[in-house]
Amino acid sequence: MAPDATPADIQAVVSMVELAGGEAFVSRGVSRIVIGLVGDVDLFATLNLGAMRGVSSVTRISAKYKLVSREHHPDRTTVQVGGVPIGPDTVTLIAGPCAVETPDQTLQAALMAKAAGATLLRGGAYKPRTSPYAFQGLGVEGLRILTDVREQTGLPIVTEVVAADDVATVAEHADMLQIGTRNMQNFPLLQAVGAAGRPVMLKRGMSATIEEWLMAAEYIAQRGNLDIVLCERGIRTFETATRNTLDISAVPVVQRLSHLPVIVDPSHSGGRRDLVLPLSRAAIVAGADGVIVDVHPYPDIALCDGPQALVEEDLTALSATVRDLAGYMGRRIPVSAPIAA
Amino acid sequence: MAPDATPADIQAVVSMVELAGGEAFVSRGVSRIVIGLVGDVDLFATLNLGAMRGVSSVTRISAKYKLVSREHHPDRTTVQVGGVPIGPDTVTLIAGPCAVETPDQTLQAALMAKAAGATLLRGGAYKPRTSPYAFQGLGVEGLRILTDVREQTGLPIVTEVVAADDVATVAEHADMLQIGTRNMQNFPLLQAVGAAGRPVMLKRGMSATIEEWLMAAEYIAQRGNLDIVLCERGIRTFETATRNTLDISAVPVVQRLSHLPVIVDPSHSGGRRDLVLPLSRAAIVAGADGVIVDVHPYPDIALCDGPQALVEEDLTALSATVRDLAGYMGRRIPVSAPIAA
Amino acid sequence: MAPDATPADIQAVVSMVELAGGEAFVSRGVSRIVIGLVGDVDLFATLNLGAMRGVSSVTRISAKYKLVSREHHPDRTTVQVGGVPIGPDTVTLIAGPCAVETPDQTLQAALMAKAAGATLLRGGAYKPRTSPYAFQGLGVEGLRILTDVREQTGLPIVTEVVAADDVATVAEHADMLQIGTRNMQNFPLLQAVGAAGRPVMLKRGMSATIEEWLMAAEYIAQRGNLDIVLCERGIRTFETATRNTLDISAVPVVQRLSHLPVIVDPSHSGGRRDLVLPLSRAAIVAGADGVIVDVHPYPDIALCDGPQALVEEDLTALSATVRDLAGYMGRRIPVSAPIAA
Amino acid sequence: MAPDATPADIQAVVSMVELAGGEAFVSRGVSRIVIGLVGDVDLFATLNLGAMRGVSSVTRISAKYKLVSREHHPDRTTVQVGGVPIGPDTVTLIAGPCAVETPDQTLQAALMAKAAGATLLRGGAYKPRTSPYAFQGLGVEGLRILTDVREQTGLPIVTEVVAADDVATVAEHADMLQIGTRNMQNFPLLQAVGAAGRPVMLKRGMSATIEEWLMAAEYIAQRGNLDIVLCERGIRTFETATRNTLDISAVPVVQRLSHLPVIVDPSHSGGRRDLVLPLSRAAIVAGADGVIVDVHPYPDIALCDGPQALVEEDLTALSATVRDLAGYMGRRIPVSAPIAA
Repeated sequence: MAPDATPADIQAVVSMVELAGGEAFVSRGVSRIVIGLVGDVDLFATLNLGAMRGVSSVTRISAKYKLVSREHHPDRTTVQVGGVPIGPDTVTLIAGPCAVETPDQTLQAALMAKAAGATLLRGGAYKPRTSPYAFQGLGVEGLRILTDVREQTGLPIVTEVVAADDVATVAEHADMLQIGTRNMQNFPLLQAVGAAGRPVMLKRGMSATIEEWLMAAEYIAQRGNLDIVLCERGIRTFETATRNTLDISAVPVVQRLSHLPVIVDPSHSGGRRDLVLPLSRAAIVAGADGVIVDVHPYPDIALCDGPQALVEEDLTALSATVRDLAGYMGRRIPVSAPIAA
Repeated sequence: MAPDATPADIQAVVSMVELAGGEAFVSRGVSRIVIGLVGDVDLFATLNLGAMRGVSSVTRISAKYKLVSREHHPDRTTVQVGGVPIGPDTVTLIAGPCAVETPDQTLQAALMAKAAGATLLRGGAYKPRTSPYAFQGLGVEGLRILTDVREQTGLPIVTEVVAADDVATVAEHADMLQIGTRNMQNFPLLQAVGAAGRPVMLKRGMSATIEEWLMAAEYIAQRGNLDIVLCERGIRTFETATRNTLDISAVPVVQRLSHLPVIVDPSHSGGRRDLVLPLSRAAIVAGADGVIVDVHPYPDIALCDGPQALVEEDLTALSATVRDLAGYMGRRIPVSAPIAA
Repeated sequence: MAPDATPADIQAVVSMVELAGGEAFVSRGVSRIVIGLVGDVDLFATLNLGAMRGVSSVTRISAKYKLVSREHHPDRTTVQVGGVPIGPDTVTLIAGPCAVETPDQTLQAALMAKAAGATLLRGGAYKPRTSPYAFQGLGVEGLRILTDVREQTGLPIVTEVVAADDVATVAEHADMLQIGTRNMQNFPLLQAVGAAGRPVMLKRGMSATIEEWLMAAEYIAQRGNLDIVLCERGIRTFETATRNTLDISAVPVVQRLSHLPVIVDPSHSGGRRDLVLPLSRAAIVAGADGVIVDVHPYPDIALCDGPQALVEEDLTALSATVRDLAGYMGRRIPVSAPIAA
Repeated sequence: MAPDATPADIQAVVSMVELAGGEAFVSRGVSRIVIGLVGDVDLFATLNLGAMRGVSSVTRISAKYKLVSREHHPDRTTVQVGGVPIGPDTVTLIAGPCAVETPDQTLQAALMAKAAGATLLRGGAYKPRTSPYAFQGLGVEGLRILTDVREQTGLPIVTEVVAADDVATVAEHADMLQIGTRNMQNFPLLQAVGAAGRPVMLKRGMSATIEEWLMAAEYIAQRGNLDIVLCERGIRTFETATRNTLDISAVPVVQRLSHLPVIVDPSHSGGRRDLVLPLSRAAIVAGADGVIVDVHPYPDIALCDGPQALVEEDLTALSATVRDLAGYMGRRIPVSAPIAA
């Protein structure tokens, strides 16, 4: 649709498509609205949609994904998360604890993150765990801790949601909703976050192809949400020296195929603290739009993934790395809000 | 718990554990009730639980999965689905269309299934599809078609559920709830079906290890449901000649580790009609407790996975195969209810 | 070429092709000779090769593999190994120790194999080992032990060759040359065994696709040897419960694509004794033309792969299994020569 | 052994070990000689080897690899190739055509390589090809072209050897012997190059674990050659968007485990020209000691892997990248010899 298309214009297109027996999915991005059509493409071609008011252009697409494809959106997208950009002009550092455990641990981790140059805070209140006997997260209590820490540090919050029923609650507290690797093909959850009015970080399924990942993003986009950030976090292979194998090539490959931003999680892919720095460097020069890392003030007693969390001295190095290599790639680091008094 | 343990006995154990700061999960199987404890194991050891009324034995376990492990349940389990057994004494054939499309197509497929010796009807009303543009299933309307066909054929229904919110509705219509490969680690969904009072078929995640699969089953068991049937359906590998690689070794491996029944889906693993028969034979003699296959009266126009659906003539061969090889393995085929007049 | 083609006829075809700037590869099977042409196919078409003496038919092929393809050889091949057939009419059991260690151990294993119905003896004199510090085989001394045991038991020998330089020596002693999984793409070795005048067993590379496996067979065929038996022995996947994942589907898939026999190695794929029987059963009913298993009289002190070797009591069960399921598949078991006095 | 140990000292140690029924493997590196012992370690402990003349220290090792392990050689090794270092102080660029086709093509590619800052020339005269119908390389003629081009450009040569029988010939012409991915576990070949008196580049098997890769290096080291450079070139996974998946994490992981240099091949891992630059950048900042890339003056008519070869304009960018990021990592680029008049 054209930038000045009105709600009535949009509704007119949708109605026309539905009259023709098709389905129309309206996706709202920061700077444009796209309507995806599904149904009898030949019939649609007879409707003369291009002449309708507010329509900018009509394109016939046969790819498996449309709304997230770069084919017809050559400019790469910038997603805004609580005022912090993730996109082609920046390298955005997201940091925080794997799991929210206590107010103190979360605040300490957030202060570490901020000191290291992070402008977004990650932290899990709902944790999908392989074992039913592992710590499952604090739930709503964890969300409240996160919003308190946001108030104290000014860092917008990225947090995971694992059930469609929780989406409204999480969206109320968080600035960005994260879909974890095990839920990449949880289609009802994708549809729920697609309708939640919050930017979404979609982690790659640990055995998903790039095409399947983009089709999962399409599920979200189709519900009207184009504010999606893709996150490469390692794939499952035969190699056991690392928890998963970071598919660094996925960064440039995805950026060719899709206009969406792509960030890298070097903490979960390697599963080892000593790999976070070299993999973060690799991610940035491979073109990643950001890096998301685990930090923990006391990793030895972390309830979740302690062995991969960065500690104080690593963060100084990470901070310098992100700054230097972002500069090398011609990008800037987003500026963080000052810590609230 | 002992066979004659009363609800009050069970509650007493649960209360004792909770007083000690632990959690107690009560799992009800066909013939026994097991209470799983999580928390300070050393403290539990001081509680003298073994002396409480209704307690049969107390076992200290450290495995990643407990309730589904064979370690303390040497006898393999038989799960009853609408009166049809799946377990060590039988080879149960489950057949039906991949997706429920129309009443006629479903009935025809069910009659084909029944003629081939199937005693359970499979058919999807809710379909998790990789592409948002693919047929997503008929939903509640599909469930109604299935219950109509059950009435006409006497075949109990196995059908997939993809969202926790749908569990109650599906459980109301179906005899067995199926968790698909993409949802094997959708933990809220596992917990919901664990509490739904219906037997569950848990398909293996296409890139899940056997250990992760059993931990997923443990999620269901922990909510009180031990009527779980595991279904091997192929894993993701580098080989592209087949859709996935059937891990036939998983059948004996799982049967060593768990008391739960294991069946095989040769249709989805191979993705090719010509492989269904040889893989069904292989499954039965590897020790599978059943086989689940796609059938379709008009596979060329199927909305889902037509290329792998068996047709009339294949079914005659399959029927003979199941009968002969079940006999070779010292098992019988469950008897189907007569077709309602 | 026609069955009555003379060496002069063959040479004439080869010369003609070479005159046209092409290459001609003569492959001799048990019952036919095939000449594969490489070069300017359009030019070849002008040569009127079909009219030359001794030429039966000329076929233009563009597949990645030609000589081993079933496309133009619809009848499946039977390979004779020291008088023992491997092909579509039989289920051939090959058994013996993983490695030849001593004369006594080899003889005892051979007698066990024979008692179980095996008609070919396997045993490694040259062992490719992942670690340079592991037992590497006895070399020529091992070959001599094998030929002594052949004399004592009447069992023809299948043994591995790992270096092109050893091919002549091994071919002098053995009835069948085995190419191991790590050498499936050792092209000089493939070419050497292709020219050695002995049947070849080509194990699938542990991460080779079926197409790559058939192209490796084509290397052997191209040097004039069509007496090739393919052996599925498990592929590398993420699953760690078994050493490799037996790709049981490969049996029917390969039999569609190639006229060559396919056997299965359940010992090396699973790496566990308790899986050998169920996987052998699965292999036979999936259509395998034979099974190759490890046996060892004293597995606890085996220098190589002891944990997967069958012992006495397993063999009785295996023997019955092969006999019964071969019968079920409409095949017979080859008859073994009597033990020499 | 101590730096001033004499051949007689070495022989004395070897003889002592052999008297004790063990085996001794003498490995000569640039700056030290190591003797690896295999056999009864407890018996060796009684020999008082540490007191023998020329012995610097004795260490008891139980790892699967010893000579290549970093455990007892904390300093990382620099390998010299025709005067060009590959090691921790430099980022060495190796470039050239995938296959040597003609003198002109090879010279043009070498000049391109040199202009881009490469100090070593790669080029294959012996090509291991999956299909027997693909171009197999020029053999000795290709080696002669390479030595001519070396004379014209001053670039030492890295070239592949695929058969033990060819090792002497290739070693006579080349400055470094390359073992390709399909031969990583061709143990006779590893042993032959281990004894050839030339540095070796050992590519990772496309489905080899890091541990297996290091054990393959150990085979070479055990024959007396510690001048080994490891080359990560992508592993086989389920992802099909790239030819293989570059395991970027392998760089820091291997450098923790082994003292050997590690370089990265971004051309073969991705199989796409557009990925060579981003993956080269990622490799350098992940800590790689060098990068090896395909270049071709006329990629559209290349006989081998044309789609991944860099062309002129890419090379200017690559040159700047290597220089800048080497500097960022505190390393220098080796200086190339001037082009011969």
